[in-house]
Amino acid sequence: MPEYSIGVDLGGTNLRAAAVSRDGEMLGKISGAAPLSHGRAAVLEDMVASIVKLREQCGTGNLAGVGVALPGFIILETGTVVGSNNLPEFEGIPIRDEIEKLLGAPVFLENDANAAALGEKWIGAGRDVSDLVLLTLGTGIGGGIISGGKILHGHVGMAGELGHMTVVPNGNPCGCGNHGCLEKHASASAISAMARLLHLGENPTSADVYNLALAGNVKAKMVFEAMGEALGIALAGLVNIFNFPLYLLSGGPLPAWDFFAPRMLAECELRSFTYRNAKTRIEKATLGNEAGLFGAAFLGFEVAK
Amino acid sequence: MPEYSIGVDLGGTNLRAAAVSRDGEMLGKISGAAPLSHGRAAVLEDMVASIVKLREQCGTGNLAGVGVALPGFIILETGTVVGSNNLPEFEGIPIRDEIEKLLGAPVFLENDANAAALGEKWIGAGRDVSDLVLLTLGTGIGGGIISGGKILHGHVGMAGELGHMTVVPNGNPCGCGNHGCLEKHASASAISAMARLLHLGENPTSADVYNLALAGNVKAKMVFEAMGEALGIALAGLVNIFNFPLYLLSGGPLPAWDFFAPRMLAECELRSFTYRNAKTRIEKATLGNEAGLFGAAFLGFEVAK
Repeated sequence: MPEYSIGVDLGGTNLRAAAVSRDGEMLGKISGAAPLSHGRAAVLEDMVASIVKLREQCGTGNLAGVGVALPGFIILETGTVVGSNNLPEFEGIPIRDEIEKLLGAPVFLENDANAAALGEKWIGAGRDVSDLVLLTLGTGIGGGIISGGKILHGHVGMAGELGHMTVVPNGNPCGCGNHGCLEKHASASAISAMARLLHLGENPTSADVYNLALAGNVKAKMVFEAMGEALGIALAGLVNIFNFPLYLLSGGPLPAWDFFAPRMLAECELRSFTYRNAKTRIEKATLGNEAGLFGAAFLGFEVAK
Repeated sequence: MPEYSIGVDLGGTNLRAAAVSRDGEMLGKISGAAPLSHGRAAVLEDMVASIVKLREQCGTGNLAGVGVALPGFIILETGTVVGSNNLPEFEGIPIRDEIEKLLGAPVFLENDANAAALGEKWIGAGRDVSDLVLLTLGTGIGGGIISGGKILHGHVGMAGELGHMTVVPNGNPCGCGNHGCLEKHASASAISAMARLLHLGENPTSADVYNLALAGNVKAKMVFEAMGEALGIALAGLVNIFNFPLYLLSGGPLPAWDFFAPRMLAECELRSFTYRNAKTRIEKATLGNEAGLFGAAFLGFEVAK
C-alpha cells in the first residue's frame, strides 16, 4: 500500500470519509448519513469509526494524516467551529481536539468550501493554476480562495466567506445579520425562494425550477436571470479584487448553467475592466461533491509535516 | 552613506522622488509638478533627472534599486500601464523599459495604491501586521492588498482594484464601464458630486463639504453618511473575503472621519459576521501622501534581488 491520507467531509446530512494516495487516487471510501439527531458524541464516534476502518484497510504505518472538512467559520488556533447553521451542536466546541483524542492522531480542521477549493486545485478544474476562487452553491454559498497554491485563511481562519458579500444593499435578510448577501440571491435555496414568489409551486427545488426553465417557462428563466445577475456582481468584484486566472462554481444548480451563466458573464463584462482585459476563466468545478473530501485528504498530508 | 533605494511617485499633478535607507529614513527628496502637458518624453526626462540627482547626492555605488509608482492598471510582465485616466499619454507604452533605458538601471513599476499599501506595511500604520488592505480616497479610489507581507498582484498585476467593487448595483456610472462602483459613491470626487446635487455650492471640494458639516449643515452631514454607507458595504465585503486584521483608509477626505466613519463601521457591524467576531481594525493610514513614495522605495530594494 502506498502512503495515503484520510479526508473526512461532514455536512448537514452526510458524513463521508476517504483514503487518498499522494497522487490523488481514492483507495477507499465510506459514506453514510450524519447522525446529527443523535447528538454530537454520536457524530464524532461515527467519524472516528470511519477513519479507523479506512486505516485498518489501508495500513496504520503509511497513514500520513487526517483532514476534516465541515461547514461554518473555523477558528484555526483553537480548532473550533462557530456560526455553523448546519452543525449547531458543534458551536464553540474544540472539535479538532475531541477528534484527535478519540483517534490518537493529529487532525487538520478546515471549512468545507476551503477544502473543496483546495481539492479542485489539487486534482480538479484548478490543477493548472496556483490561484483560484471557488463558490459552492448549496443551501448557502461557501467560498474558498487559493492564493499561491494555499488556502487563504486570514487572521483567525475565517477568510473566504464569499456567500456573505453584499450584492443587493437592501436585499433579502440573512441569518448572518446582513441583508442582500450573495447566498440569499444566488444559492439553491434562493432559487427556490424566488420561484415560490413567482408561484412556481409549493416548494420547488432548484432542480424543479431548472426543469421548468427547460420546458420554456418564462418565470423560471427569470429566476435564473436574477441569480446570474447576483453571481455576476459578486464575481466581478472578486475579479477586480484578485485578478486571478480562474473562478469556479460548484453545487446543485450547476446543471442550469446555460440559464444563469450568460447573465452572470455579462455582468462581469460590464462590471470589471480586469475581466475584459486580463484573461479570466469562470467555469464549472469538476470534482462535484467529492472536492471537499479530496481537499481534506490533501490537508491530511500537510498536518503530517 | 548607507545603502538606499529611490522611490518615485508619479501622479496626475505631482512628480516626487525620494532616496530612502533600508530602515526607512528619508535621505533626500525632490518634489515638483508633473509636466504632463509637455508630453510623455518631458515627464520621463523629469523623472530620470530627479532620480539621477538623488543618486548623485547619495552615491551611485550604494543605490540598491529604483521603484516607480503610478496610477492605472499595471501589466507586470511588460511593464506597461493601461486604463489610467490620469496618464493617458502612457497608455500601453512600455514605460518601465523606457525609464530603464534612460537611467541605465533596473526599475520596478507598481500601481500607486499598491505601493502606498506596501509603504504603510513597511513603516506606517501596518508595520505590526503581515496582511492589510488600503483604500486611497482621491479623485478615484485606489486599493492595495498586502498578503503575507507582499503585494497581492494577481495573474497579470491588476489585483486590488477595490475602487471598482460594485456597492450600488444601479448606482452612478463609472468610466470603467460599470455603474455603482465604490469610487463613484465614496471618493473625494463623489463627495463633491453629491454636494452639488444637494446645492451645497457651485463646485464644492470635499474640504468645503467637511467645513459645512463642521458648521452643522445637515445636508453636508448626509453626504458623509452616504459615503460612509458605501465604504462600509465595500469594507464589510473585504472583511468577509480576507479576514485580515487591518484595513486602512487614506486621502483627502480623511479629516471628515468623524462624519463618515460611524456609519461606515455600523455597516461593517451589520454586514459582516467576521467583523463582529474576529478582531478587525479599520483605521486611518499614517504616512499620508508619502506612503506611495516609501512603498516605491521599498520595491527598489526588491528589484535589486
